Amino acid sequence: MARIVQKFGGTSVGSIERIRETAKIVLKEIENGSEVAVVVSAMSGETNRLLAMANSMSENASPREVDALVATGEQISAALLAIELNNLGVNSLSFSGGQAGFKTEGSYAKARIKGVDGDHLIAHMINGTVPVVTGFQGVDIAGNVTTLGRGGSDTSAVALAIALKADCCDIYTDVDGIYTTDPRIEPKASKMDTISYEEMLEFASLGAKVLQTRSVELAMRYNMPVHLRSSFNLIPGTMVTGEDSTMERAEISGVAYNRDEAKVTIKGIPDQPGIAAAVFGPVAAADINVDVIVQNISEDGFTDLTFTVPSADFKPTMKLLESLAKQLNAREIKGDTGVAKVSIIGVGMRSHTGVAKKMFEVLAKENINIQMITTSEIKVTVVMDEKYVELAVRSLHDAFGLAQAA
Amino acid sequence: MARIVQKFGGTSVGSIERIRETAKIVLKEIENGSEVAVVVSAMSGETNRLLAMANSMSENASPREVDALVATGEQISAALLAIELNNLGVNSLSFSGGQAGFKTEGSYAKARIKGVDGDHLIAHMINGTVPVVTGFQGVDIAGNVTTLGRGGSDTSAVALAIALKADCCDIYTDVDGIYTTDPRIEPKASKMDTISYEEMLEFASLGAKVLQTRSVELAMRYNMPVHLRSSFNLIPGTMVTGEDSTMERAEISGVAYNRDEAKVTIKGIPDQPGIAAAVFGPVAAADINVDVIVQNISEDGFTDLTFTVPSADFKPTMKLLESLAKQLNAREIKGDTGVAKVSIIGVGMRSHTGVAKKMFEVLAKENINIQMITTSEIKVTVVMDEKYVELAVRSLHDAFGLAQAA
Repeated sequence: MARIVQKFGGTSVGSIERIRETAKIVLKEIENGSEVAVVVSAMSGETNRLLAMANSMSENASPREVDALVATGEQISAALLAIELNNLGVNSLSFSGGQAGFKTEGSYAKARIKGVDGDHLIAHMINGTVPVVTGFQGVDIAGNVTTLGRGGSDTSAVALAIALKADCCDIYTDVDGIYTTDPRIEPKASKMDTISYEEMLEFASLGAKVLQTRSVELAMRYNMPVHLRSSFNLIPGTMVTGEDSTMERAEISGVAYNRDEAKVTIKGIPDQPGIAAAVFGPVAAADINVDVIVQNISEDGFTDLTFTVPSADFKPTMKLLESLAKQLNAREIKGDTGVAKVSIIGVGMRSHTGVAKKMFEVLAKENINIQMITTSEIKVTVVMDEKYVELAVRSLHDAFGLAQAA
Repeated sequence: MARIVQKFGGTSVGSIERIRETAKIVLKEIENGSEVAVVVSAMSGETNRLLAMANSMSENASPREVDALVATGEQISAALLAIELNNLGVNSLSFSGGQAGFKTEGSYAKARIKGVDGDHLIAHMINGTVPVVTGFQGVDIAGNVTTLGRGGSDTSAVALAIALKADCCDIYTDVDGIYTTDPRIEPKASKMDTISYEEMLEFASLGAKVLQTRSVELAMRYNMPVHLRSSFNLIPGTMVTGEDSTMERAEISGVAYNRDEAKVTIKGIPDQPGIAAAVFGPVAAADINVDVIVQNISEDGFTDLTFTVPSADFKPTMKLLESLAKQLNAREIKGDTGVAKVSIIGVGMRSHTGVAKKMFEVLAKENINIQMITTSEIKVTVVMDEKYVELAVRSLHDAFGLAQAA
């Protein structure tokens, strides 16, 4: 008998009607003969409503109290789904994070899951009861309610699947899987049947919002298969699993992009040891997430440093660098918000050579100027003028033969 | 240093603005030098909103899930009040019933408080922190969230005051105390400075909705003073305490009434042992709360039984009796929904004789016909035609000199 953890997001429990539909999906899985546990998010909009209340109360609301407040959102949807499952003749009990055995550590609003004691939920499941567990929350060692931060429900679901020794963690969402690229840009994009954890991590870090990075990392560590699928139909989605060594892999699996990028350059700084630390230390301290970094070849003892940051961090970054520039004797600070990243991703790169070269040729043929390049074992990323994004994505998707996978 | 538990109802935490006002009341008490713990209800309307969600999900929602759902209401108001107390520079932490140490037993939706482990809250208070505790809820021995039923927050507050060895439990509400009678009927009604637990119980059972009967019983058992006062001003309200033996008591303390009464009569049943049990057994089994009971003197071996029930139970009672009538060979069943109860209440009756006689004389003088009479040690209740209620209340209030207490 398969044991499945099903996770439903805010849209799937966003109204009485949607909860009824969601309960039917659970029932279907039970009728398939599976043992099921469910993880739910708050009804869509509820977390924001609660946060707005905290904010109108105080701009410096205590994180402990905000967590206690926000955690009620999932408790409401969990109870409602359990009620509807009972309606359908399914034994079901709702559990808050603490009741379900989620122990957390770290700070409020971004706690980490330290462990999940799944024994009593397993006992319930063996007795034919479906536990409906609140995602996104747990209790710390002192018994305080803590939340995992936005999107933490995916991580809750994977952690629960591991604790319950489940066969698979099904993440239901409003997309039906991972595509070879964004279908809004390339209509010939096709859905992948499987994707490896490593590839999924690269897609997630590029802003594919279907799965939280933390949840993929956790699934990878415990080799827990994650099935990303739509709550609007019963068509299989994309299975995120370990690499399948027996299968021939294509050169790349997909093309991703991100427009939310800005580029900053520090020109003419003395090229001496410790200069990168002197720049990136203060940047990191300001909680700014630096992505691609390029340091030019030194000329006359001076060099240029260029890096990208999320668009939202552009202004604070420029402000910070302007004050740093004097300290570091830099000649000039330049910024550009009109850039984007385009990446090709695939574990196939490990066995296929010349993938990066092919990418550069494709872009050159389209007269797209590459501003920066960075590579990892399974990804090549280029930074370009934002206006070329669609052209680049379509050309690469076509050149690497991804449309044919459909 | 006085230790005070302050309880605020739904209106006092009904909006961001009201929570700010409530926090000021807490701050004032701290500035008076008291150690304070707070108990809150859900924001007014929130419990009904949550119940409506459960009802629209299912008419037979599992009581366990309804409790888990509804309990979020107080968690929200507790967190918001703690946030506002922090705003005012007061250390404060919110606690759910379970976190605060409330252990319950009995069924969902009407659990009883088995005990409160107040040690860690006392430690917080000694360190200058104000615990804000959710009323109305706790956890049972298996860790399930349970609620105490409507109005249970008063009971939570008294139970917490006992567990924290508080000097007083202040119940803040939208009235400023207990009056000698309903000021809407008798404008000369005056606020009582003190009232005994026993008298308060009689008032509460007559529908004075300011304090739950359960909370008064609990306060009486542990001799915990309860200060009923308004959250709209800082004027002292009515202190509910043990009887003050040193004080000369007036004949009666107040006049109460209840219009939500209906009268039923079973005529001509054989007067034999066990007949009352044969009638009231099935009535009790149907969860109908019988109040005043009168059995006529037997005549020719037959008797009549008359009793009152809450108006809401009138129809099911009549239906039940009609089927019982045949079994019992009763001659006739009669019902009357146009009746009301008027009571005089006061521990002074114990030392003053002739109080009941005086009541009957006052009513006779006004030509008010008494249908039924029942008495307790500190109360005389008469059942009368509903149309006489105002006249009866005013005459009795005047005759017993209650207006002069103002």
